[in-house]
This record gives sequence, C-alpha cells and structure tokens, in this order.
Amino acid sequence: MRTQVGIIGAGPAGLLLSHLLHLRGIDSVVLESRSREQIESTIRAGVLEQGTMDLLTEAGVGARMQAEGALHHGFELAFEGKRRRIDLTGLTGHSITVYAQHEVIKDLVAARVAADGAPRFGVSNVSIHGIETDSPSIRYHHEGETHDLQCDFVIGCDGSQGVSRAAIPQALRQDFERVYPFGWFGILCEGVPSSEELIYARHERGFALVSTRSPNVQRMYFQCDPKDSVDNWSDDRIWAELHARVDSHDGQQIVDGKIFQKNIVGMRSFVSTTMQHGRLFLAGDAAHIVPPTGAKGMNLAVADVRVLTRALSAFYTENRSDLLDAYSETALKRIWRAEHFSYWMTSMMHRIEGASPFEQQLQVAELEYVTTSRAAATAMAENYVGVAVA
Amino acid sequence: MRTQVGIIGAGPAGLLLSHLLHLRGIDSVVLESRSREQIESTIRAGVLEQGTMDLLTEAGVGARMQAEGALHHGFELAFEGKRRRIDLTGLTGHSITVYAQHEVIKDLVAARVAADGAPRFGVSNVSIHGIETDSPSIRYHHEGETHDLQCDFVIGCDGSQGVSRAAIPQALRQDFERVYPFGWFGILCEGVPSSEELIYARHERGFALVSTRSPNVQRMYFQCDPKDSVDNWSDDRIWAELHARVDSHDGQQIVDGKIFQKNIVGMRSFVSTTMQHGRLFLAGDAAHIVPPTGAKGMNLAVADVRVLTRALSAFYTENRSDLLDAYSETALKRIWRAEHFSYWMTSMMHRIEGASPFEQQLQVAELEYVTTSRAAATAMAENYVGVAVA
Repeated sequence: MRTQVGIIGAGPAGLLLSHLLHLRGIDSVVLESRSREQIESTIRAGVLEQGTMDLLTEAGVGARMQAEGALHHGFELAFEGKRRRIDLTGLTGHSITVYAQHEVIKDLVAARVAADGAPRFGVSNVSIHGIETDSPSIRYHHEGETHDLQCDFVIGCDGSQGVSRAAIPQALRQDFERVYPFGWFGILCEGVPSSEELIYARHERGFALVSTRSPNVQRMYFQCDPKDSVDNWSDDRIWAELHARVDSHDGQQIVDGKIFQKNIVGMRSFVSTTMQHGRLFLAGDAAHIVPPTGAKGMNLAVADVRVLTRALSAFYTENRSDLLDAYSETALKRIWRAEHFSYWMTSMMHRIEGASPFEQQLQVAELEYVTTSRAAATAMAENYVGVAVA
Repeated sequence: MRTQVGIIGAGPAGLLLSHLLHLRGIDSVVLESRSREQIESTIRAGVLEQGTMDLLTEAGVGARMQAEGALHHGFELAFEGKRRRIDLTGLTGHSITVYAQHEVIKDLVAARVAADGAPRFGVSNVSIHGIETDSPSIRYHHEGETHDLQCDFVIGCDGSQGVSRAAIPQALRQDFERVYPFGWFGILCEGVPSSEELIYARHERGFALVSTRSPNVQRMYFQCDPKDSVDNWSDDRIWAELHARVDSHDGQQIVDGKIFQKNIVGMRSFVSTTMQHGRLFLAGDAAHIVPPTGAKGMNLAVADVRVLTRALSAFYTENRSDLLDAYSETALKRIWRAEHFSYWMTSMMHRIEGASPFEQQLQVAELEYVTTSRAAATAMAENYVGVAVA
C-alpha cells in the first residue's frame, strides 16, 4: 500500500495534520495502536489558544468547539489570601477556550471518517524504514497481517513513548529534560463551576487549580506526590484538601460535587532535538513534553502541525523543500518559549520541598509583581494566550 | 550629648538621611568606625536610578553627579553570539546614571561638613541601648573616651556586619538568605570605553559585564570562583578571559588598558525582617543585600532613606507616628521586588555549575524572550530603572 504522508499516532497532532493535508489534496494514512473508543475517552485537559482554534476552524472541525467550548477572557492567581485577575483579553486582545482534548479528538476522527480517511486503529509492531531515502515506509501488524505502508514522508505523532523519536539516530539527537518532584491529582466532579474563571492557587499546602469542563462538570487539580495512589484519597479527604488550599483567598469558596474520576499525573519538561531526520519528522509529544501548568501541551502539538502542513504543502504544490529543511528550527522557537513559560509557571506556583524561606518569598514577590505590573502581567498573558512567539 | 536622630554608619544611607533631616530642621549625628579617607576611597560600582538622582538633587548634592555622571538610555544583553539592546528610555521613559558610589559619598560628606554636621569618624565599641523606651542612646568610644549619645531614634545604617541588626531581638527577626556559588572579579583600567552602553554577557565560560567609570577609566567584571585570589590572575590572563567571554558577540571587541585595581566579591541575597523595633530602624545593607547583577544595592539604601525621611519628618512636624510604624512594611515592598529582580538577573546571566542542559537552554530561551517581547523587555527595564514599584 502507498500514500504520500504516513502518520503514526491519532492524537490531536496526527489527526489534524492528516485532515489539513487532505484539504490541500495530499493523501495520508494515520496508524494508531489504540482503538477509536480508547482515544476518544482518554480524558485530557484542554485550554485552546486562539491560534489553535483558528487552525481547527480552518480544518472545518470548529463547530462543536465554538458551540460547547467556553471562552475565557482571564484567569485568577490566588496567593497569600488574595485573588488577582490576569485580564488576558484586556492585556493582549486575545482569549482562550476551555474545550477538552478528547472532544477535539472526537471532532477530528469524525471529520477523517466522513472524508473517507479513517485512521487505522489497533495496529501493532510499528517500525519505520528508509527515512534516509526518498521512499520511506512504515511496517505494522493489523488484524493478523503485516503491512508495509510506502510513503514520501513519515510523521511521528506517537507521543513520548512512541517508536518515532527512536528512529532518529541517537548520535544526531540531544535530549533536554527535567522531572519535577511533584504531580497533579486531578478530579472530575458533577456540579456547578466554583468560579467563572480558572483559579491558579499557590498555597503553603501546595498548588491547586480550579478548572471547569462544562456547566455541570468540573475539573480540579491539586499538587501531590507523584508516587501517591488515588486509593489513598477518599472523596472527603480530596474536598478537605481542595478547600484548605483554595477557600482562604478573598472569600473564594469551592463547590463540592460527586467525584466520578480521579487520576494522578507526573510532571516533566522534555525537548528532543533535532525534530527531523531525512524523511522523518516529529510533532507534538513525540518531540516535547511540558508540565500542564502553562496549558501548552495540545497547543504546541497543533503549532507543530501548522508548520509541518505549510512545509509539506510547499513541497507538493511548489516543489520547495526549504520549509521542510527548516521545520525543526522553526518549530523549536515556539517550543522553547512554551517550555520556559511552563517551567516558570510551575516553579512559581508549586510548593517546592526543601525550598529555603528566601526562595519561598521569591515566589510571593514574583506573584505580587506579575499581578501589579502591567508589563509583567502582559508578558504572562501573551504566553498564556500563545502570542509571545509570532 | 544629645541629638534627635542618632545614625550609625556613614555610607550613602546614613549620610543622605542625615542631610535630608538637616534640611527639614531635624538634628542628627552620624557615627562611623572608618576614617573619612577610607569611606571616600572604597571603590564601589554605581548605577543610579532616576529616583536616587532625584533625592540626591533634592538634598542639594546633585551638581557633580549631573556634571560628571554618564546618563545611559539603555544597555545590551549579549548571548549566543548576539547583542541585543534593552531600550530603557524608550520602554519606560526613564534612564539611569553611571556615577560611582564613593563619589556620592564624597559629595555627601562635603555637604555634611559644610552644614556643620560632619560625621564622627573613627568611633569604636558602638552599642545601642533603650530602643524599647522613648529615649534610646548610642554608646561609643572616640579618641580615648566613652560617649553616650542620647536621641529620640537610632537609625542603623552600618551595613551587613554592623551592630544595629543584632540589636533587634532574634525572636522578632526572620532572616532570608541565598549565597551564590560564584563571585565577580572586578577590574579598573585606564583606557577608552569598549562600548557606549553597559554590556551584560552570558557566555559558556561565565558571565561578564562591561561597564565604565569615566571617559578614561573603565570597569569590567567577570564571574569567578569567590574563593579565588586576585594573585592568580595576571593582567594577560584577565584580558584573555574578558575577550573570550565578550568579543564573540556581533563583532563586539573590548579595549584593553592598564589595569590598576583588581578585586573579588562574593555574591549573596539577604533580607532581614522586621527592619524596625521600638526606636531602632534599619536602612540599606544593614537590613538587606542583593547580588550586584541588578545594580540595586545603593538604590535600595536610598529608597529606604526616602521612606524614613518622610516618616521622621511626619513625626517631628505633624506628631504622627503611623508612617514610622509602617516603615518596615513600606520599605519591604521595594526590597522584595529588587531582591527578586537581582536574583532573576543573576540566575539568567551566570554559568551555574551543575546546571542540566535543559536548565542552560532555559537561560537562552529567557534571554531570547526578554530581548524580543516588548512586554518582557519592559518588565526588565522598569525593574532596572527602578519604577517597577511605585
């Protein structure tokens, strides 16, 4: 079998790339190890930058996002008993939309299926071949048979643990990593929103984030030991912890509800360069990971896809390969900005075990500053809405 | 002997406070352990914020500073082979003046002497008494005799190692500190300026700063081991190191000259709270230290003096003590802002032994950001010129 662009991974990056290429008359095949049900039900947060929304809309999958997503014009920083607002729209002219990643995936899968480009789900034993030639291929098992997908390009959108990154020779790669000594305990619960806008809270007990999913479903997180187990946390203990961290700020009170999902995620910063070798290109989590504090994960994946779509389009329609050659360098500008921002937000908001009193006071001093200086608030806001890099 | 305000220490804080009080009709006596020659020849850098210049001018000691100081409207950040300018005046409407601290001291001593308020130099065995009463006193030896200076208030401007801070009971104090694992090697040399504006350079060999003292005398620094000795550094070795760190950026070339002074300083962040107890108030280095990277040391001392002058003035002319009561809290707002800024500049610009590749890339990503985002550059500039806190 043959296609123009072979894509490994049906996350937001792979699906969106496949659909954008389709709209430009470029054929692709998406291979995914999980089932459609699995990828559509893996719950992930979703804060969409304007640029992400624009590209989803351009791909024709923006209707439900616009109808059901919640537009947010600001968020709150809570610390030292105060709540202070970052006016995203007032400071930058842009806003963000809260719309969960798995909803984006549902919309993209539906669009691919409708365009007769359904991903191949449930593949296994994926391997990449010939990326240093003009005719690479992807070998995989599917329904008991081995297939060879011949293509012009292989795009690795298979996440941090996928096979794609390893297909770039180790000698050409440099990895950059930081593992944080804390994680996030996340819950989904029934009930009304506790706040009109997201609240990022720094508390001596640890960080907490009050987010939302819909008018009836709420998302909240609190900093925890990444090795802890959800089994150690009864609903009562969870609510007591959230109340202790969030309620103390300017009369803020979070609203309890029936918890129907609990999970713990570790936190890590990671960048792998180069993001390309021969005919193989990496996009999204396959090349970089951010801690969730800056809400940048999916937006970075979509930004990679924007660069890659332009570059592949230029190759097929104008016979230019300069944009492909520059892909990694181009994409890394935004990636390093987001990596720094995510690291900064994480470091400022979390309780750091072993931090000296001086370092704790620096966190407070920095929060005081970003919530009182227009310049500093604008810098934070332009990163949050995603316009700090053109 | 009796005065209204007893001041310990004839640094910029003590001298300026004494003179400003004099102009408001309030008597003071300044006690100093060193000689006049010593304090006037201890070489210290000097970057003066507009607010510092304004207060010196208000005190009537601004003439020589305005004539001989060099007004700077920006500075340069050098990294990764690039030089990028921070346009202080364009971004904030303010500028800074390069004028050495010991020149400020000469001007202030001359003014105090002319006003018949010469500091008492060469005192020893200073001790503070009765600060919890309305009539504290300072005991000291001078020319073989013991004196008791009776006063209404004692102001401790005697630096980090002075006796004043220790006079606040330990149980009421909290100290915040960070010691950096590197120092600055500083030189003074003859020759023309290498650059019209200051250059802060981040290089893999370590930080370097190209500064100036006058059209014929230049000041340069480079990051070093704080335990190193100047004896290990020949002039040739110093110039080789400076060239290696600075010259690589956009054709920049530093100009060698005859070195006539070398020194090594350690780097430390320190804040002691509270800054007051009873009738004792601390100002300047007695209460807080910053690493020199942000050029905030003398400016913070002067800012303390501004707050204290107002508060003492209100006490004597309006019989109000609320400003005195709020002194520490008021002063600490600016102090913590400057502490954070100095820590941030230091962390971003220096080679950190043991930093991971990820952390090194974060330094570059942050420099890239502050030199390309108007919001981020403005945040840096407003801190540098000293208007980040009202």
